[in-house]
Amino acid sequence: MAAADRGEVKALLFDVFGTVVDWRSSIAREARAFAARRGSAIDGEAFADAWRGLYQPAMEEIRSGRRPFVKLDVLHRENLEKVLQQFGIEGVAWPELEELNRAWHRLDPWPDTVAGLTRLKSKFIIATQSNGNVALMVNMAKRAGLPWDTILGAEVVRHYKPAPAAYTEACAMLGLPPDECMMVAAHNNDLLAAKRQGMKTAFVARPDEFGRGVKNFDLAPADGIDIGAASFLELADKLGCD
Amino acid sequence: MAAADRGEVKALLFDVFGTVVDWRSSIAREARAFAARRGSAIDGEAFADAWRGLYQPAMEEIRSGRRPFVKLDVLHRENLEKVLQQFGIEGVAWPELEELNRAWHRLDPWPDTVAGLTRLKSKFIIATQSNGNVALMVNMAKRAGLPWDTILGAEVVRHYKPAPAAYTEACAMLGLPPDECMMVAAHNNDLLAAKRQGMKTAFVARPDEFGRGVKNFDLAPADGIDIGAASFLELADKLGCD
Repeated sequence: MAAADRGEVKALLFDVFGTVVDWRSSIAREARAFAARRGSAIDGEAFADAWRGLYQPAMEEIRSGRRPFVKLDVLHRENLEKVLQQFGIEGVAWPELEELNRAWHRLDPWPDTVAGLTRLKSKFIIATQSNGNVALMVNMAKRAGLPWDTILGAEVVRHYKPAPAAYTEACAMLGLPPDECMMVAAHNNDLLAAKRQGMKTAFVARPDEFGRGVKNFDLAPADGIDIGAASFLELADKLGCD
Repeated sequence: MAAADRGEVKALLFDVFGTVVDWRSSIAREARAFAARRGSAIDGEAFADAWRGLYQPAMEEIRSGRRPFVKLDVLHRENLEKVLQQFGIEGVAWPELEELNRAWHRLDPWPDTVAGLTRLKSKFIIATQSNGNVALMVNMAKRAGLPWDTILGAEVVRHYKPAPAAYTEACAMLGLPPDECMMVAAHNNDLLAAKRQGMKTAFVARPDEFGRGVKNFDLAPADGIDIGAASFLELADKLGCD
């Protein structure tokens, strides 16, 4: 590497749930299909919100050190059992439970995602830096055509974001100092945690993450975030990609 | 997953040095260029062989538990200092040493590699299962156009092949039982170690790995290997890829 390159961004690390894929519509669709297979109906969006609502508390048990690391597929399954109970759904056999749990492997990208990532990949290393586990990310990418150079994230480094090591160890695995890596996310708390570890940061707005017309507090980059963009295509423009 | 799919291969895990890329010609080229920059000449192939010769002993220190895990870039650099000494080359400054060490990030693929991987990727998850570290694999892939779905291997699981955990933990990260993963390598010892952990196995012959006319003991699959092929294209044929 020439000395002049020092400090230039070489890799983009992506948050995935909400930033790359629309988890809420996708889980709602999967929940409705699950209910239909059982001959019933369900409020898919309410189911998605309830399931996602248990996500942070489950990871917090691990971040706090109260529980050893387990991958997100395991947390999702434990949370799914609670949500099914909340919704009064009983007698779900294991293969059916597992199939529904893998709904998180089948999330749909936002409309600009694949075209944007493809452009960004021409100039940068692009990798996931998600709390999702490797199988979840690989299966999602195969289905949706997400052209990652590699999958990093919680399972690889055994730390859930926003733990500092989740960011620093991902950069180290790419052999790059943090200031040559840019975290891309629709969530300012993720970006500010990355910035505290010395990473560059890009905010991409996903106003409909929690549903159309549903209040989303992350509509603009927080103070100190390097770049703000309305889509991955605008991010590619701002980063000088063809 | 439908029950009928159980036991079908879903992912191919690749050995890289020798199987995917021609490390010897590439390192020889880099060593010659390094010498030329210093205004001298070198037997590039002898340099490559000497450097590679220190590879297994260095990993064995870690496999045996005598040394904690460090990534291959570190072992390569330590070994490089020894090889430079053997070749009587002195006074190499750190940036120059680091640049030469990164020769392993710039290995050239065999002629059939990219076309073969591209076909194999259409039907299977394709991932590295190499002793090379993540940055080495990512940089190599970007330069050579290797279309991996993800990078696995020693640094991710913190075990060097042929340690059993190197194989079992890679499969577990893909969320697959070992018999739904196929190890692809030009080396029977790697394949037999994978087979002992329950993986499927494919041998791809790389007769010139150690140089044209240089004795290579791995010319055909050992007893018990599932598939033998002369190239990644033939492997794609045998696995029913378009």
